[in-house]
Amino acid sequence: MVQERVPLTVHGMSVSGNCHKVRLLLEQLGSRYRWEEVDSAHGQTHTPEFLALNPNAKVPLIVRDDGRVLTESNAILFWLAEGTPYLPTDGWERAQTLSWMFFEQYSHEPYLAVARFICGWAAPGSSRHAELPRLRERSHAALAVMEQHLRQAAWFSGSAYGIADIALFAYTDVAADGGVSLEPFPEVRGWLQRVRSQARFVAMPAVTPEVRARMDAAA
Amino acid sequence: MVQERVPLTVHGMSVSGNCHKVRLLLEQLGSRYRWEEVDSAHGQTHTPEFLALNPNAKVPLIVRDDGRVLTESNAILFWLAEGTPYLPTDGWERAQTLSWMFFEQYSHEPYLAVARFICGWAAPGSSRHAELPRLRERSHAALAVMEQHLRQAAWFSGSAYGIADIALFAYTDVAADGGVSLEPFPEVRGWLQRVRSQARFVAMPAVTPEVRARMDAAA
Repeated sequence: MVQERVPLTVHGMSVSGNCHKVRLLLEQLGSRYRWEEVDSAHGQTHTPEFLALNPNAKVPLIVRDDGRVLTESNAILFWLAEGTPYLPTDGWERAQTLSWMFFEQYSHEPYLAVARFICGWAAPGSSRHAELPRLRERSHAALAVMEQHLRQAAWFSGSAYGIADIALFAYTDVAADGGVSLEPFPEVRGWLQRVRSQARFVAMPAVTPEVRARMDAAA
Repeated sequence: MVQERVPLTVHGMSVSGNCHKVRLLLEQLGSRYRWEEVDSAHGQTHTPEFLALNPNAKVPLIVRDDGRVLTESNAILFWLAEGTPYLPTDGWERAQTLSWMFFEQYSHEPYLAVARFICGWAAPGSSRHAELPRLRERSHAALAVMEQHLRQAAWFSGSAYGIADIALFAYTDVAADGGVSLEPFPEVRGWLQRVRSQARFVAMPAVTPEVRARMDAAA
């Protein structure tokens, strides 16, 4: 068997929002890629082989056919989107797109993604469940900032759908997994629906029944 | 008195690393700007006037002479540096620069900056001091990732000094304020010295004697 040469390999966990961002954009670009599944919830980012790719022990990352590596989901989105309709060409719109992507990693993901992780992957009796009230409060604060923006704008990536929307969609779409309600945020819910209506949209795969049961019990 | 029209106003707290990033780059670019001091440690980002500029209640932000606003320190650096030697033109080097800037906001600043904040600004008897051992452990993990990179490269912004170096310098240079030792990281210390040697470098202003005394007591 001769393995087909592909330009790009993604190392990622399919049910991680940060990793799904990369899959969603690659699918929308119609790019060829290989997906290497990494179970980051069970230590697979801490093997010597993985640490040689990313000493920061995180997915996603991409490896080009010449072996060069790029880490950090939002930097990957930016690199993949350059020269495509998913990243504005106007300098100010690009800056606003990046601003929302830094907002996502600093003020959004650390609350929505961590609440979801604790609900789905922490042991049911884990002391980490005590973090949930604060994480949900902070998640609502981030969603309120998004709601306010969406009262005057349709997208987070300048004047059209793009990579800041993909970045913010990832964990907002699965907020309920962490017990975070979107009910108070009608603009956010409308925007999620607009994202899902984009050409070649793909949803994140379902978590395992075991993880689903833990999420349902914790939410 | 006629106020001189300046192209840019920075709203920031001078002794915040995230804010100092913007001042350092503006000084190195030789740009004209006005600095509007905001005491974010004492609630000044939560006034109605400030929230109208940034609903996310954070400094720094910049306001252009036509009133347009840009938030998030690293997005501001990217916008200011476009077309200058502080941001690479090569697409892959730009992506690596952004990757380190996302690393800074996700895996570095939340530990080094928060440890420094607790030591300098939390009340001496505050329960937040209990967070320090974990924050210092995570700070060392981030510094170890930087140390490994610097064994094979001089800079974080591609092949020359640039905005990822400015972003990472901000809180690394004041790590000791949060009780984080740089002693185990000789490459990081050498890189800090290279940053300080750059043309038109400006150091962060000193904190007040009261804050200094708290930091010295906590470290």
